[in-house]
Amino acid sequence: MSVLVVGSTALDSIKTPYRENPRLLGGSASHAAVAASFFAPVKLVGIVGNDFPKRYVQLYRRHGIDLEGLQTASGKTFHWAGEYEINMNNRRTLATELGVFETFTPNLPGAYRQSPFVLLANIAPALQHHVLDQMRRPRFIVADTMDLWLNIALPDLLKLLRRIDALVLNDSEARQLAGDDNVIAAAKRIHRLGPRYVIVKKGEHGAVLSSPAGMFISPAFPLNKVVDPTGAGDSFVGGLIGYLATRKGGVEANLKRGMIYGSVVASFCCEGFGLTRTTRVTRAAIEQRARQLEKMVRF
Amino acid sequence: MSVLVVGSTALDSIKTPYRENPRLLGGSASHAAVAASFFAPVKLVGIVGNDFPKRYVQLYRRHGIDLEGLQTASGKTFHWAGEYEINMNNRRTLATELGVFETFTPNLPGAYRQSPFVLLANIAPALQHHVLDQMRRPRFIVADTMDLWLNIALPDLLKLLRRIDALVLNDSEARQLAGDDNVIAAAKRIHRLGPRYVIVKKGEHGAVLSSPAGMFISPAFPLNKVVDPTGAGDSFVGGLIGYLATRKGGVEANLKRGMIYGSVVASFCCEGFGLTRTTRVTRAAIEQRARQLEKMVRF
Repeated sequence: MSVLVVGSTALDSIKTPYRENPRLLGGSASHAAVAASFFAPVKLVGIVGNDFPKRYVQLYRRHGIDLEGLQTASGKTFHWAGEYEINMNNRRTLATELGVFETFTPNLPGAYRQSPFVLLANIAPALQHHVLDQMRRPRFIVADTMDLWLNIALPDLLKLLRRIDALVLNDSEARQLAGDDNVIAAAKRIHRLGPRYVIVKKGEHGAVLSSPAGMFISPAFPLNKVVDPTGAGDSFVGGLIGYLATRKGGVEANLKRGMIYGSVVASFCCEGFGLTRTTRVTRAAIEQRARQLEKMVRF
Repeated sequence: MSVLVVGSTALDSIKTPYRENPRLLGGSASHAAVAASFFAPVKLVGIVGNDFPKRYVQLYRRHGIDLEGLQTASGKTFHWAGEYEINMNNRRTLATELGVFETFTPNLPGAYRQSPFVLLANIAPALQHHVLDQMRRPRFIVADTMDLWLNIALPDLLKLLRRIDALVLNDSEARQLAGDDNVIAAAKRIHRLGPRYVIVKKGEHGAVLSSPAGMFISPAFPLNKVVDPTGAGDSFVGGLIGYLATRKGGVEANLKRGMIYGSVVASFCCEGFGLTRTTRVTRAAIEQRARQLEKMVRF
């Protein structure tokens, strides 16, 4: 079954202590869509300016991503610039230029409205609502978010939580949203706000799923070297929903393995700048790393 | 088979945002010995002053811990005072009064020298060397350490690494010892310094084993509430070596499950001040939590 991915489509200029890369393909929807494309057909909704490089359109196409929902507007593509420290958990934003993204309204082409799996990648909750308003009874809805929306759009986000099946957020966001410093307790409180499934991302420490059936502790794939972690969280959730869309049976039964696949795609994402490593990955390489990860947690 | 535990035996005064508890039983050897005692007979080597409460001697005895190696000297027992912030990953030391610990020489009673399993809990590397000098071909030696020894006794510690089978240390210590900011790369570098097994503790994020057979990612048992994390690392390694001492066959085959048991005992440790929760635990409760943890990582 197909996956609808809505989020930001951007150009990222990323600086690390070792290298600098301007205008890479980035944005939550780009990372998530490419990650999901290894498993299932993907329909993308986003917006780019008329400066958007043709090679990035070709990149989406090589991954079989349906671009009917990718709007092109007159103006500049959303541009984000950031710099990582040696400890890659610390980064600072150097520039955020919204460009055409400022006027983005995620209107869905008719063929998109029946997508059974919906990923609301990180964008403003109001836009995530607008997507759901157009959908016809999707089977499974996952939403990602970020601290910015907790700070400036909390009422919209809280309303969204009642409309989705799964919320994905990182540990500090979970603490903030629940008002509890303990991540496990925070995840449990977030259920009461709506979502049946709460997935807390912990970067290099993996992720935790809280569900009615209990908890699942998902490892991160251990890497000797992280080149650029930008988009790892988006790759994780993209890989997760892509895998779910390929499985028969209830979502609950497949969520755990979906998180493993999400972790694997995220690990590839971290091994190169932007999407450079991810786009060179094969499904066979993903399967191999998933088997390795399974071996590393078995006892 | 029996486990020899050598380390500090102390009185801990612990302050958290919620409560204050003076003169609890603490020290690396106390936590590790009690943790190991759930699995195997334990022989303790440590030193206390003549102010050491009788009830703590009785506590050791209730756990069947052999106290022939526990020295009593005229003076005060090692006293540590610390304060935790709301985020329990942050603590500061309020007082360190070495007392009789300053003159501690861990001389082993004759019956101790043939112990097959040796845990060199966190003390000065010179004292850890002194213990090994007295041993007769132990089967398996684990050493724990701390940042203090990396800073003030690095040459002794580096020599020790050539004499032990397994080194246990936390993530920031691993980074410091290896001079590598990536924990996975750091663990691999530490092998070259001697130990066949390197176990990196990551607190609430679990622990990672690096061995010739590959990596093992061990989860922490998820807790809704942490009361006092003091001694959790010592409990982890105590539970680990205690479990190993009960198993037939090679250590390698049992290390993974040993880490799971270590994580479980550490989780109980965190649920009460000092050893108050750990000492009320039963082997059945440990087994139950180990089964729960196994379920939480299976997919």
